[in-house]
Amino acid sequence: VNQRDRHGLEILDRDASLQLLAGRSVGRLAVVDGNQPLILPVNYALDGEAIVLRSDDGRKLRAGTRSPVCFEVDDFDESTRSGWDVVVTGRLEEVTPFDAATLDRVHRLPVTPWAEGDKRYWLRLVPGHIGGRRIPRPAVG
Amino acid sequence: VNQRDRHGLEILDRDASLQLLAGRSVGRLAVVDGNQPLILPVNYALDGEAIVLRSDDGRKLRAGTRSPVCFEVDDFDESTRSGWDVVVTGRLEEVTPFDAATLDRVHRLPVTPWAEGDKRYWLRLVPGHIGGRRIPRPAVG
Repeated sequence: VNQRDRHGLEILDRDASLQLLAGRSVGRLAVVDGNQPLILPVNYALDGEAIVLRSDDGRKLRAGTRSPVCFEVDDFDESTRSGWDVVVTGRLEEVTPFDAATLDRVHRLPVTPWAEGDKRYWLRLVPGHIGGRRIPRPAVG
Repeated sequence: VNQRDRHGLEILDRDASLQLLAGRSVGRLAVVDGNQPLILPVNYALDGEAIVLRSDDGRKLRAGTRSPVCFEVDDFDESTRSGWDVVVTGRLEEVTPFDAATLDRVHRLPVTPWAEGDKRYWLRLVPGHIGGRRIPRPAVG
């Protein structure tokens, strides 16, 4: 039986959370631009426990590498009022040619943005906390 | 034909974005706690153009009313690599008995948290910018 939080939600530990992250390819990145948090949908892939994203020279790169970020993936079913979410906090780092081994590794990951455009920068979220919550589907009957 | 941004995504204007917001009941709120942005899944309903949420005395209320917030709703289909997202930025305000008319109005909204717990505080995101993007489904053929 999983532990529950004070709202009755099942707590997902780091391993369970990473398993859910590995099964998806679209998440949301929150960066702080000035004092304004912004949520940006992103394509991603995992490099071990790190989350790898691509960016052009926009807000993800400018704002995201200057302060801590938050990354989130979820799956909610409005009809059964159930689902889960996983949240990762940490620092976003640009992977540069100075770390050729990492750059070579992330280049082989399936991070394929749906949007057109250059997206030539590779970013890696080095995770601090990884955790999640699950709202179970109500028992039938 | 809708306008497109520099990534080839269709730009959703305020009206189109509000229509998409009105059709959903689960979104994500980004607040800044210290210098750490956090993404929190939330149940919501619209009060005109404002987004109404409920909270216990946790992070949404503490961090969310002290600095600007961001709210996001999206729907992506990984199989067709298409979908949309709508983002709202603004200030989150507690609706208190000092504004009885608003409190009375929001109390009648269908904001029904899936999680257990008290959630006795009503919060209202007064929107600044509202906008969205759509990645169209690729044409068949």
